[in-house]
Amino acid sequence: MSLIQKSLKRVLKTTAVVAAMTFVVTSANAAEKVYRLKLAETWGPNFPIFGDATKNMAKMAEEMSNGRLQIRIDSANKHKAPFGVFDMVKSGQYDMGHSASYYWKGKVPNTLYFTSMPFGMLPTEQYAWFYYGGGMELMEKVYSPHNLMSFPGGNTDTQMGGWFQKEIKSVEDLQGLKMRIPGFAGEILAELGAKPTNIAPGELYTSLERRTIDALEWVGPSLDLRMGFHKIAPYYYTGWHEPATELQFLVNKRTWNRLPDDLKAILQVAMKTAAYDMYTQSKHESGKNWASIKSEYPNVEVKDFPPEVVAALREANDRLLKEHAEKDALAKEIQESQANYMNQVRPWSDISHRAYLNSQAQQ
Amino acid sequence: MSLIQKSLKRVLKTTAVVAAMTFVVTSANAAEKVYRLKLAETWGPNFPIFGDATKNMAKMAEEMSNGRLQIRIDSANKHKAPFGVFDMVKSGQYDMGHSASYYWKGKVPNTLYFTSMPFGMLPTEQYAWFYYGGGMELMEKVYSPHNLMSFPGGNTDTQMGGWFQKEIKSVEDLQGLKMRIPGFAGEILAELGAKPTNIAPGELYTSLERRTIDALEWVGPSLDLRMGFHKIAPYYYTGWHEPATELQFLVNKRTWNRLPDDLKAILQVAMKTAAYDMYTQSKHESGKNWASIKSEYPNVEVKDFPPEVVAALREANDRLLKEHAEKDALAKEIQESQANYMNQVRPWSDISHRAYLNSQAQQ
Repeated sequence: MSLIQKSLKRVLKTTAVVAAMTFVVTSANAAEKVYRLKLAETWGPNFPIFGDATKNMAKMAEEMSNGRLQIRIDSANKHKAPFGVFDMVKSGQYDMGHSASYYWKGKVPNTLYFTSMPFGMLPTEQYAWFYYGGGMELMEKVYSPHNLMSFPGGNTDTQMGGWFQKEIKSVEDLQGLKMRIPGFAGEILAELGAKPTNIAPGELYTSLERRTIDALEWVGPSLDLRMGFHKIAPYYYTGWHEPATELQFLVNKRTWNRLPDDLKAILQVAMKTAAYDMYTQSKHESGKNWASIKSEYPNVEVKDFPPEVVAALREANDRLLKEHAEKDALAKEIQESQANYMNQVRPWSDISHRAYLNSQAQQ
Repeated sequence: MSLIQKSLKRVLKTTAVVAAMTFVVTSANAAEKVYRLKLAETWGPNFPIFGDATKNMAKMAEEMSNGRLQIRIDSANKHKAPFGVFDMVKSGQYDMGHSASYYWKGKVPNTLYFTSMPFGMLPTEQYAWFYYGGGMELMEKVYSPHNLMSFPGGNTDTQMGGWFQKEIKSVEDLQGLKMRIPGFAGEILAELGAKPTNIAPGELYTSLERRTIDALEWVGPSLDLRMGFHKIAPYYYTGWHEPATELQFLVNKRTWNRLPDDLKAILQVAMKTAAYDMYTQSKHESGKNWASIKSEYPNVEVKDFPPEVVAALREANDRLLKEHAEKDALAKEIQESQANYMNQVRPWSDISHRAYLNSQAQQ
C-alpha cells in the first residue's frame, strides 16, 4: 500500500473506498489534465514533408495521450518570424519549435553542427551518432544554456549539389559563379572564388531563368520538382554540402518540466518517430519525383563534381572548420566527435551500402 | 496534508461524492485498467540488438501508458519454441511475437517477401515501400487470414555475403561449395551447384574451422564479431542476399481489438520506433565491430563476388521468383509491387547515397 493510500485511509476511516478513491484523485488531478502546447514552425502553411513532420508528431502525441497532450502548430504566416523560432521558444512565447539547428549559427555558432556537415555523415550514420555516438549529449551542451532542449526533427535525405546552367569542369569554373547557396556551404564556395547569394524562394525560378544567378541549390527531387528548376537548367549536380540534413524540434525546458512523466515519454517518442518517418517520406518523395523528372525531362543530366573540385571544396571546408575549432573548445569537441564517429562508421557503409549499390548498378 | 487530501476531504463532506464515484468507476474501468500482454520472441535471453528491440518497445509502451500497458517478454529458453512464434500468436497463447517473417515460408509461402529479398531494397528504401509504397497493405493481406497483424520489427542493416575459406573467382567455384546459408538464398545457391546446409549456431565456428563447411553467412559485423569467424576465415564477402533484413512484430487480432484506442496508438508507435531504433543501433554496432575486426585482424580481406557470379545468382533468383509468381496471384502482386517500387527508388539512391559514398571514397 502506498503512502498516499495509507494517509487516505486515515482520512476516510474505511478500507473499502480507499483504493478506488486514490485512483479518482490521481486521475482527476493529474492523469486527466489536458496540456495545451504551442509550436512555432519555420515553414509556411502546408509546406510539404517538413510540415507533415510536425502534423505527424502532434497527431501521434494526441492519440497516444488520449487527447491529454494537444499541440497547436503555428506556421510562419501566423507568427511572422520564421527565423525567430529559437528566440520565441527560448523566451517561452512558444513551448516548442520546428526548424533547423544551423539557422542559429549567427546567434550560437555551435548550433551549426547538428543539421548536416559538408562531407559529413549520411542520415542513418548521423542518427547513430546522435543516439549511440554522443551526439545528443553534445547537442544538449549547446542548447541547455538557452533554456532549450533540441531533438532530431526529420531528415531530407542527402541533398543534391544543385541546378547549374553551365558545367563545372575545374576549380576555375567556380570563379565568379553566382550561386544561391546559403550558410556554411556558401562560405566554403566563397573561399574558392564563387559569389554565393541568398534569394527569396519565390524569386529563385526567375533568377535562374534570366541568368541573374548561374546556379542554385534547394533540397533534392522531393522538394525541387515543384520549384520547376529542371525546366530551365540542364545540369543537376550530386551532393557534397548537406549529406543528411536533419531538422530539429525545440522544447522550452520549463514546458518540459511541468509535463507528467508519461506525457514526457509520449512527446519524446512522438518527436523521434516523426523524425524517422520524415526520412522515410523524403526517400519516397525523392524517388517518385526523380522518376517523374527523368520521364518528363529526359535531357536533364546528372553530374558529379570532378574529383579536383571536390578536393578543393573539402580543403576549404577543413580550413574553415579548423578556424572555428581554434576559437572555441566546444566546437573542437563536437568536430572531433563527428570526425571520429565518421571514421568508425564509414568503412562499414563502404562495404555494405556502397558495395551493394555499386554491384547492383553494374547489372 | 497534501492538496489532494484536502480537496478529497471537502468532496467527501458533500453530496458531490456521488459524481466523483461515478468518475472513479469510469476511470478505473477504462482509462486506468492495466493491460498485460505476453510476447514470445524467437531469440534466446539477452540476445544482442534483436532482444534490445523488444525491450525497447516494451519500455516505451509502459512509460507512455503510465504503466497501463505491460508487455512481458518470453525468450526462447522460456517458451521452448523459437520457430513456433507464428502459431503461438495465431492461437492466442501469446498476444505478441518478435521474429522474422521469412521463417514462416514453409507454412505460408508469401510471408517470404516481408523480411528482405535477394537483390532487393536497402533498409530505408524498404521502409518507404512499407509505409508509402503499399507494403503494409500487402503484408496485411498475407497475415490477416491467420488472425495476425504484422509490423516491421527492426533492421539488421545490409547483411554480408559471408565468411569464406576460399576465394570465389567464378561460377564454377560455387560447384559443391558447402555453405551454411538457410532459406531462399540457399535455394538460389543450390541452383548454381552449391550445397547449402543449415547448422545450429553453436556448431558454426567449429564447422568452419574444421572445414566441415567451406563458408557460412551469419549477419554482419554487428553480430558476427562475437561468433569469432574472422579468426578462422580469410575472406569476408559483401552482400547480395539480404540487403535489408527486417524483423517483425506479430500481434494477435483479438488482443489488438480489446485494447482502447490510446493503447493501440501507443503500441503501434512503440513497435514502429523500436524497429527504426534497431536499424540505427545495427548501423552503430556494425561500424564499431568492423573497426575492431580490422584493427585486430588486419589480414581479413573484403571481397565482392565477381560480376559474372552476381549475374548468375540474380538469374537463378529471378527464375525461382517467377515460379512462385506463376503458382500464386498474391505472390505475383507482391513481387510486382516490390520490383516497381525498387525501379522507382533506386535511381534516386544511385544519384544520392551511391554518388556521395563513391565521391568520398576517392578522396
